[in-house]
Amino acid sequence: MAKKRRAAQSSKKSGGGKTRPSAELNAVIDDLVIGNRILYVQNVVDSYGHISARHPHRPDRFLMSRARAPGLVVASDIMEFGLDGELIRPDERPIYSERFIHSEVYKVRPDVRAVVHSHSPTVVPFSVTQVPLRPIRAPFLYPEVPVFDTRASAGWTNLLISNAALGKALAQTLGNNSVALLRGHGNVVVAPSVRLAVYRAIYTEANARLLLQAKMLGGPITYLAPEEAALMEREQSRHRPGHGSDRTWEMWKQEALARTGKL
Amino acid sequence: MAKKRRAAQSSKKSGGGKTRPSAELNAVIDDLVIGNRILYVQNVVDSYGHISARHPHRPDRFLMSRARAPGLVVASDIMEFGLDGELIRPDERPIYSERFIHSEVYKVRPDVRAVVHSHSPTVVPFSVTQVPLRPIRAPFLYPEVPVFDTRASAGWTNLLISNAALGKALAQTLGNNSVALLRGHGNVVVAPSVRLAVYRAIYTEANARLLLQAKMLGGPITYLAPEEAALMEREQSRHRPGHGSDRTWEMWKQEALARTGKL
Amino acid sequence: MAKKRRAAQSSKKSGGGKTRPSAELNAVIDDLVIGNRILYVQNVVDSYGHISARHPHRPDRFLMSRARAPGLVVASDIMEFGLDGELIRPDERPIYSERFIHSEVYKVRPDVRAVVHSHSPTVVPFSVTQVPLRPIRAPFLYPEVPVFDTRASAGWTNLLISNAALGKALAQTLGNNSVALLRGHGNVVVAPSVRLAVYRAIYTEANARLLLQAKMLGGPITYLAPEEAALMEREQSRHRPGHGSDRTWEMWKQEALARTGKL
Amino acid sequence: MAKKRRAAQSSKKSGGGKTRPSAELNAVIDDLVIGNRILYVQNVVDSYGHISARHPHRPDRFLMSRARAPGLVVASDIMEFGLDGELIRPDERPIYSERFIHSEVYKVRPDVRAVVHSHSPTVVPFSVTQVPLRPIRAPFLYPEVPVFDTRASAGWTNLLISNAALGKALAQTLGNNSVALLRGHGNVVVAPSVRLAVYRAIYTEANARLLLQAKMLGGPITYLAPEEAALMEREQSRHRPGHGSDRTWEMWKQEALARTGKL
Repeated sequence: MAKKRRAAQSSKKSGGGKTRPSAELNAVIDDLVIGNRILYVQNVVDSYGHISARHPHRPDRFLMSRARAPGLVVASDIMEFGLDGELIRPDERPIYSERFIHSEVYKVRPDVRAVVHSHSPTVVPFSVTQVPLRPIRAPFLYPEVPVFDTRASAGWTNLLISNAALGKALAQTLGNNSVALLRGHGNVVVAPSVRLAVYRAIYTEANARLLLQAKMLGGPITYLAPEEAALMEREQSRHRPGHGSDRTWEMWKQEALARTGKL
Repeated sequence: MAKKRRAAQSSKKSGGGKTRPSAELNAVIDDLVIGNRILYVQNVVDSYGHISARHPHRPDRFLMSRARAPGLVVASDIMEFGLDGELIRPDERPIYSERFIHSEVYKVRPDVRAVVHSHSPTVVPFSVTQVPLRPIRAPFLYPEVPVFDTRASAGWTNLLISNAALGKALAQTLGNNSVALLRGHGNVVVAPSVRLAVYRAIYTEANARLLLQAKMLGGPITYLAPEEAALMEREQSRHRPGHGSDRTWEMWKQEALARTGKL
Repeated sequence: MAKKRRAAQSSKKSGGGKTRPSAELNAVIDDLVIGNRILYVQNVVDSYGHISARHPHRPDRFLMSRARAPGLVVASDIMEFGLDGELIRPDERPIYSERFIHSEVYKVRPDVRAVVHSHSPTVVPFSVTQVPLRPIRAPFLYPEVPVFDTRASAGWTNLLISNAALGKALAQTLGNNSVALLRGHGNVVVAPSVRLAVYRAIYTEANARLLLQAKMLGGPITYLAPEEAALMEREQSRHRPGHGSDRTWEMWKQEALARTGKL
Repeated sequence: MAKKRRAAQSSKKSGGGKTRPSAELNAVIDDLVIGNRILYVQNVVDSYGHISARHPHRPDRFLMSRARAPGLVVASDIMEFGLDGELIRPDERPIYSERFIHSEVYKVRPDVRAVVHSHSPTVVPFSVTQVPLRPIRAPFLYPEVPVFDTRASAGWTNLLISNAALGKALAQTLGNNSVALLRGHGNVVVAPSVRLAVYRAIYTEANARLLLQAKMLGGPITYLAPEEAALMEREQSRHRPGHGSDRTWEMWKQEALARTGKL
């Protein structure tokens, strides 16, 4: 297993000065690999999209797969990046051109330990209309879900967040929120852990479906109140075995491994 | 098998004073486990939601899984609860915080022998709009499908029915109906048996989809008449092999076990 | 295999006076079993719905499964019925209460050799609104798709076509069309062969989805012209290997057997 | 493997005058077979629809399966056609009646090396309404997505593009675009390679779903600008391992083979 993790070895010095991965780092890498698979099996990402985790021992670094479809990611695909989006160790394998989404968010949001970027299918329509993605059941959509448009920041582009300037502008639009939309493209979802980022990405899509259907029924909609959302978030932030994202992770992990094979 | 059922042994005294499960209790537990799996495979529950059964020998108790994703439930997860939501036997494993949905309904509805709580996806939009979930094909939606809003009963909450007072208020809103919606959250479905509760939960979702689509087509909708519903319900209440919920159970059970593994 | 077909042996007398199934009868039974599985796998039927075939040697009889979920039907489930819906041979197993849909259509439509009754999900919304199910791509929806309402024929019922009088009224509403809707319930699809009935049932659902989506886009819709439909139907009625329903049958059969197991 | 490719052997003369397939031809045939399976697994084609490739050594010829459901195609099904839609070598097996879609496009579009024809489900509604299929995320929908109506070109037909005249009229409507719709029928998608044609066919369907949902949300829609689309297309046209259609092909291929079996 150790040899599969050549890309992420900067964790701790062993007695003889050799680096070896810590248990904590291994746990983050495992979650990252499973998180890639879950996002694919739950239809949040297709062949594109990515998920990263802040390095557990080096907050100025983050971990992310080489450029690959999330449903295929294995531990040896995980690489280590600095906060300018640079590879920490030389590696010939292709890397995600949109890694600046991750690096620039980690720079300005010390509370964030995981970032998902996806083309979540029911979320994109909200990015090209005037209808805000407001919470019916997903409390982390408060305070708001801002929409970032590359056109406003940088004029004509290929919509990809493929440099630090665009990543910085996106991070500014995101502000202290948990989710931002990218016009005609997808979204970015942040959280204090990989498991919670996966959870939020999946329920952002679910909430978008609920809201679309409520719009189709017509008439006024009763949204989740900010006060209710705050109480829900307080509950979710306490880790309790068998509850919250712990319960979903067990189910999603089993589904993901059944569909995409061994780690 | 007996050892897998440590949590639900209060059924009958054997000669030597030891308790052992009765065949009837075993049958209810089997249905409960399969019902959990079916609700997951038929997309009525995701990782959340739960189903309970009134204890066949002790109407003041009910049976329900420990806090776990329904798609993963096995017989040894089934625990026994009293009608105040309390565990009958000490158990360290986590339990559903919303067990009061079940306990309070069993208290006031002696006709109810099974309760489903789910976040049934197409049902939630009806809980946040003014459009009533009326029957197109599901007769048990009569007399009506009331909407329970925690905000009206208890002000700002995290929306969970996590105490007896909220459970009681919900049970009052449910009244003598078979289905009630929980605003921004899901629904509760009750029935005289586990199999019928599963049946109703699945066809509540199906009816919601039909009604949403009919709304999208536009114009007046011909609902099921109360007189028709009464005749349909009379038919359904007679257990006939090969008909009604007996036919669906055989199919759903096979699908559920194929997708989620052995019991 | 012969012993699995005890219910449908009235075909031909062998030399010694014993009846044994003919190759033609076996072929119809095989198609009927596969057709049941296909309709289930293609989501036209759930645990309800049924498909029958006119007996190839006895036009006053038809073949249909015992009362069972279509996805589970095997050859030994196939029974033989007369045109009053009566069982030809004594059999203790439960039978479909709605067999009169089939018997009454076979009585008045000598051209029909197969009948499907389903609760095809996107078709039902058209049965409860004023929006006619007109053809975008399915030529057999001409001349029209009438809607049969039990309420108009028989007042308050449980909506099931569970006697000859209701079956007769439905057959009258169907007239010379290929598809009729049953209000709040489902549809009936008829064809000159089992394979074509399966084909039409699946493309009726597909056309309903197309029309629903076109309605959602808004504005005028260009329907298939009756002249175009006539040319398409002429093509389809010629059996050509690799074309028309021959091509779809090969695919659907493989999918159905992969999902539902051996015959 | 060589014997499985009897239909497509015109590639190169070996020393002794015998023809044998080149590596390049084999690669195109492999992509074509996998492309058939992918389009089926991704729900762009059902049992109908087809994909072809221009012959890599003979630009006046193209390769396409015999008339068969795309999900079942194997290498030995691939045949070679001339640009009048004629078979190059005698073959008794049935062929697609709509091969003229392919032949006529190859005639007038030297840049095109692969053609997909499908009944892509969410695309058809756009073919029968006045709502243009404009790009939200799919840059290759520029300059525009014209709608071809057989009725305008040829009056009453069975809608099939089953002769050279109809194919030519369709190719004229397509013009220099990448996608054209066929009224009440489906679409045609062209590209400089099989992989890109598959990619475009799948994202045409995805864009149609996004646009339908955006329409349902209501209000003005921010489309992709032509300037943005041009920058995106420039990016996509550079083949980069791990990026663009290279990344999707790896994922889709694995899914297709898992679902439809060995090549």
